[in-house]
Amino acid sequence: MYKLVSLIGALAFAGASTMAMAGEWQALPTKAPEPADNPTTPEKVELGKILYHDPRLSSSGTVSCASCHNVMAGGEDNRGGSVGVKAQVGGRSAPTVWNSAFNATQFWDGRAPSLEAQAKGPVTNPIEMGMKSWDDVVVRLKAIPGYTPLFAKAFGGSDAVNADNAAKAIAAYERTLITPNSAYDKFANGDLKALNEQQTRGMQLFKDTGCAACHSGPGFNGSQNGQAATGVYMKFPTIENAALEAQYGFTKDVGRFEVTKNDADKHFFKVPTLRNIALTAPYFHNGKVKTLTEAVTIMAKTQLGKDLTEQQAADIAAFLDSLTGEFPKQAMPQLPGYTGKTFDYE
Amino acid sequence: MYKLVSLIGALAFAGASTMAMAGEWQALPTKAPEPADNPTTPEKVELGKILYHDPRLSSSGTVSCASCHNVMAGGEDNRGGSVGVKAQVGGRSAPTVWNSAFNATQFWDGRAPSLEAQAKGPVTNPIEMGMKSWDDVVVRLKAIPGYTPLFAKAFGGSDAVNADNAAKAIAAYERTLITPNSAYDKFANGDLKALNEQQTRGMQLFKDTGCAACHSGPGFNGSQNGQAATGVYMKFPTIENAALEAQYGFTKDVGRFEVTKNDADKHFFKVPTLRNIALTAPYFHNGKVKTLTEAVTIMAKTQLGKDLTEQQAADIAAFLDSLTGEFPKQAMPQLPGYTGKTFDYE
Repeated sequence: MYKLVSLIGALAFAGASTMAMAGEWQALPTKAPEPADNPTTPEKVELGKILYHDPRLSSSGTVSCASCHNVMAGGEDNRGGSVGVKAQVGGRSAPTVWNSAFNATQFWDGRAPSLEAQAKGPVTNPIEMGMKSWDDVVVRLKAIPGYTPLFAKAFGGSDAVNADNAAKAIAAYERTLITPNSAYDKFANGDLKALNEQQTRGMQLFKDTGCAACHSGPGFNGSQNGQAATGVYMKFPTIENAALEAQYGFTKDVGRFEVTKNDADKHFFKVPTLRNIALTAPYFHNGKVKTLTEAVTIMAKTQLGKDLTEQQAADIAAFLDSLTGEFPKQAMPQLPGYTGKTFDYE
Repeated sequence: MYKLVSLIGALAFAGASTMAMAGEWQALPTKAPEPADNPTTPEKVELGKILYHDPRLSSSGTVSCASCHNVMAGGEDNRGGSVGVKAQVGGRSAPTVWNSAFNATQFWDGRAPSLEAQAKGPVTNPIEMGMKSWDDVVVRLKAIPGYTPLFAKAFGGSDAVNADNAAKAIAAYERTLITPNSAYDKFANGDLKALNEQQTRGMQLFKDTGCAACHSGPGFNGSQNGQAATGVYMKFPTIENAALEAQYGFTKDVGRFEVTKNDADKHFFKVPTLRNIALTAPYFHNGKVKTLTEAVTIMAKTQLGKDLTEQQAADIAAFLDSLTGEFPKQAMPQLPGYTGKTFDYE
């Protein structure tokens, strides 16, 4: 009897309305778009993976791309501000590298139009990886004998070790960092039982509350295939809230205004992907909000003027849990050695 | 004609004396000794690999075992002193984790008799990983849902998440970190052409100069199968040298005396393995010597009272290059998530 009731429940749960829902939602593509001048090749990806994990690209020899964008975890560091060289703490929370190939722009303020442009930034940022210049980085890369053949294989030519190629290789690697087959993706692909009841409620609430207006598309980031769709930037907070401001200081950061110096861009930030969001606490550009449920509650309040009940926020957070994908199996890279020597690290 | 001369040269090079030499040297075992109370199992190794790479075992959430003992590189960080939480720099150079299972003792001063005991140290060292206690570590491990089943699979029981098991898992993983099939190992196994001419000269010099008196056995660390053989500790410098002392300050560190408080142990240090030594610059307990050739020259002077010519030092360094082994292919671990939350990192 119990089994029969369960079966009837399951059938009702996976009924007509749920099936109709599936068609509205888009699964994550398993291949990232590639720029014409940097097609993805296995040789570039392999070199990029090595560079991405090489702490010798920092002034102290201790910070690699992976230090703050950890691909063994949710693609970042679960800190409010990341720790760079000399224990300096960055002003914005590190965005995830997973599925970043599907973002129409990079960094919270969108100051890099491509993964290639993004990759060059942190290396010479004084509070991140602290190298004085890319010229200094290239000097190191050329001193490490194993890098020259890897660059030659990836880019051809006898003098392929340079900053542009390093950035291209890192970007090519990042385009392989895709996490498909989340419970959500299975649902979107027609497996109507992939989401549990709470997640299905949360999905409906996510839509009805208006979250999907900005967090649209397969990346839940306002983009389609790496191009702007419903919108790449949004003002945060859109609706002023003195209590939240006092608690979290969201408006201390002027966001995209720093890039454009256009008043209309004040407090605008990139709409971040919600893929794997359950693994990337704490939340928002300043990383001040510690739990996903609270982040959902704040978003509804400041962006949509809605007060969610605790149950509603928990339901939406449960839906967001379903966006945690499958992480591709990766072989650990072995960094080429600087035989019998070391660099002058600070 | 040129080919014939080359062939004759090669035959002479791989002649009777070289063949006799091969028999004196020991290749690295491909399997590490295991303690009776912690047999190596795939489940422990997998858990240990995850723990080893998990920065959440540090107070800042930024330092894992791998930060200073990087298995993507030579098993350490190529720095004089390692950087721990809050950019604090350790007083001794990080030893390599590769082949550490063949050391009879761990740490430069031998204060840990096993890999299990070693693994517990850095996590609660205030200038390394900075956790207040292992109790605090276990609170975190229990809060991350994915760890409980991994500990249960590795150790059985319903309450397997504890400090002893974490250390056992890390040690089990470290026992898999073996680098066989170096050029030297191929030579020791009978491939008489595995070493080039300079390396063969260096090998003979290594023996004739007296280096092998301490750096004995397959690990070149005075041990056999993880047990003391020719000696685990040696005084450094054995022969005082005012000029070197002024330059490098070797005697500022009293070494094993710190552990035993026995005057006879002053300035005694563990005989470190020479396996992969070309990848682990800078050298010595204080990491003050930047190149392998210089390290060889200093060792001959301070330990054996011999002045090597530049050529002799270069030949021995070339032989030491031949101790760089093959690094096992490893799958990158995926750390279990702390879903929708993060810890209070400093």
